[in-house]
Amino acid sequence: MVLLDGTSCSEQIRQEIKAQVDAIKATGDRPPHLAAVLVGSDGASQNYVAMKERDCAEVGFDSTVLRFKDDITEQELLDKIAELNADDSIDGFIVQLPVPKHIDERKVILAIDPNKDVDGFCPENVGNLVLGLPSFVSATPNGIMELIRRYDIQTEGKHCVVLGRSNIVGTPVAILMSRNTKPGNATVTLAHSRTKNLQELCASADILIVAIGKMEFVTADMVKQGAVVIDVGQTRVADASRKSGYRNVGDVDFENVKDKCSFLSYTNGGVGPMTRASLLQNTLKAHQRR
Amino acid sequence: MVLLDGTSCSEQIRQEIKAQVDAIKATGDRPPHLAAVLVGSDGASQNYVAMKERDCAEVGFDSTVLRFKDDITEQELLDKIAELNADDSIDGFIVQLPVPKHIDERKVILAIDPNKDVDGFCPENVGNLVLGLPSFVSATPNGIMELIRRYDIQTEGKHCVVLGRSNIVGTPVAILMSRNTKPGNATVTLAHSRTKNLQELCASADILIVAIGKMEFVTADMVKQGAVVIDVGQTRVADASRKSGYRNVGDVDFENVKDKCSFLSYTNGGVGPMTRASLLQNTLKAHQRR
Repeated sequence: MVLLDGTSCSEQIRQEIKAQVDAIKATGDRPPHLAAVLVGSDGASQNYVAMKERDCAEVGFDSTVLRFKDDITEQELLDKIAELNADDSIDGFIVQLPVPKHIDERKVILAIDPNKDVDGFCPENVGNLVLGLPSFVSATPNGIMELIRRYDIQTEGKHCVVLGRSNIVGTPVAILMSRNTKPGNATVTLAHSRTKNLQELCASADILIVAIGKMEFVTADMVKQGAVVIDVGQTRVADASRKSGYRNVGDVDFENVKDKCSFLSYTNGGVGPMTRASLLQNTLKAHQRR
Repeated sequence: MVLLDGTSCSEQIRQEIKAQVDAIKATGDRPPHLAAVLVGSDGASQNYVAMKERDCAEVGFDSTVLRFKDDITEQELLDKIAELNADDSIDGFIVQLPVPKHIDERKVILAIDPNKDVDGFCPENVGNLVLGLPSFVSATPNGIMELIRRYDIQTEGKHCVVLGRSNIVGTPVAILMSRNTKPGNATVTLAHSRTKNLQELCASADILIVAIGKMEFVTADMVKQGAVVIDVGQTRVADASRKSGYRNVGDVDFENVKDKCSFLSYTNGGVGPMTRASLLQNTLKAHQRR
C-alpha cells in the first residue's frame, strides 16, 4: 500500500507556485493577492484563515484579512464584498464559512464576482466545471484530482464510487472523475444516504472517494483488494495525549482498511494539505486571468 | 410494460401553461414572449424552430423568430444577442444550434444573459442546477424528470445508470437524479465510451437512461427484468413507407427490450415532446422572474 502524501505533494506545489511568483515579480508586476473575509471569533475559522495567510507568505503572495465582528449586518458584508469585487489590487478572495446565522450564506456566495471566486463556490464556476470550461474548481475536489494526477493513478475505465453528494466535495469530484480528461474517464457512481447495498457497492469500487463525515464508516469489508481509497472525512476526537487535545479521525477505518488498498489517502496529511494548496493555485490563476 | 406517453403528458403541460397564460392576460399583463435566433437554412433547424413557434402559439405565448443568413459574422450575431438581452419585451430566447462553423458556439452561449437563457446552456444555469438553486434546466433533462414525476415512478434508493455524459443530456440528468429531491435520490452511475463491463452495468440498473445516439445499442441482455428504461436516442433511418421518407430509431432495441421493462419511454412520443414542453415551462418561468 502506498500512502498518498498530501503534505509533500502540496509542498511541491507551493514550490512550483513560488517559482512562478518570483518570475512574476522579476517582470516588475505585483504578486498575486488573496483576501480573506472573516466574520466573528470562531476558533476553527480563525485557524483556517491564519493557515491561509501563512501559505500566502510562503509562496510570496500578498494577503489581506478583513475581520468583522459577529454583529456585522448582512448588507454591510455584501457592501464589503462589492468593494472587494471592484478592488483591482486583489485577485481573488474568500469568505470564510460559516457566517453567523443572521447572514444568508447563499447571498454572500452569489455576491462574489465569479472572476475572484477562488473558492469556486459560485454557480458560474460550478457550471464551467461541469461544461469543461476554464473554472476555479473548489479546493477539495481540485486537491483530490491533483493528488491522483501527481501519483499517476490510473482512472480511465475504472469504477469510481463517490460516497457523499455535498456541493463542495462529493458532487464536483464525481463530475470531474467522469469527464473526458486525465485523470478522469472513470465510470462514476455517486452514492449517498439513500443508497441501498452500500457495502456491496463500495466493495465493487476500483477507486473509492469518501466524504460523508462519519467516523470510521468505511470498514474493511467495504473495500476491494487493491482499491484506491481517498478519505476526505475529518472528525475531531478528544485525545489527551496530544498537545492540541484532539486528533482527527477519517471516514475510513484506517487500521483495518490500509492493507487492502493499493493507494490510500488518509485524513491527516492526505487531502487536507492539498485543499490548502488548491486555494493558492486558484489565486495564481486569478492573477494570470486579469 | 407501461409505455411512457410523452405526447399526452406534454399536451397536459401545455394546457396547464395555457391556463396560466390566460390568468396572466386577465391581469392586463402581456403574455410570455420567446424569441428564437436561426442562422442559415439547415432543414432540421428550420423544422425545430417552426415547432417552437407552433408550441408558443398553442399556449398563447408571443414568439419572434430572427432569421440570419449563413454569412452573418460572429460579431454581428453577438451584437444581436446583446440586443435581445436588453430587450424588456422578450422574456427568454434561444439560439438554434448548430451555428455555422465560422461562429464560435461557446462564445454565443456565453453571451446570452443567464436570466433569458431558457435553453439552460449557460454555466450559471448549469451551476445552479448542481447547487440545487433556481435554474433553467435544459430541455431534455427537464423533460425526462417531468416524465418520471408525472408517471410517479419511484426513484429513491434505486440504481440509475445513465449512458452518455453529454453536457446537454447525460451529465445534467445524472446530477438531477442524484439530488435530494423527488424524483431524485437515486444512486447514479454515469457511464460512457470508456466504461468497461457495460452489459453487466446496464443489467444492474433499476432505471436506465440512454443518450448516446447509437441505434439499437441497448439489447435485451442489458436490461434487468422490471427496469425503467428512458431512451433519449434518435437516429434517422430512411423509410420509403413513410410520408417523411424516414423514421427515428432509438438507442434501445425496442422490440426485444420492451417486454422486460416496467416503464419504457421510446424515442418517438417519449422524451421528444417533453423536451419541447420544457422550453415553454422555462419561458413561463422567465416571465414570472422578471
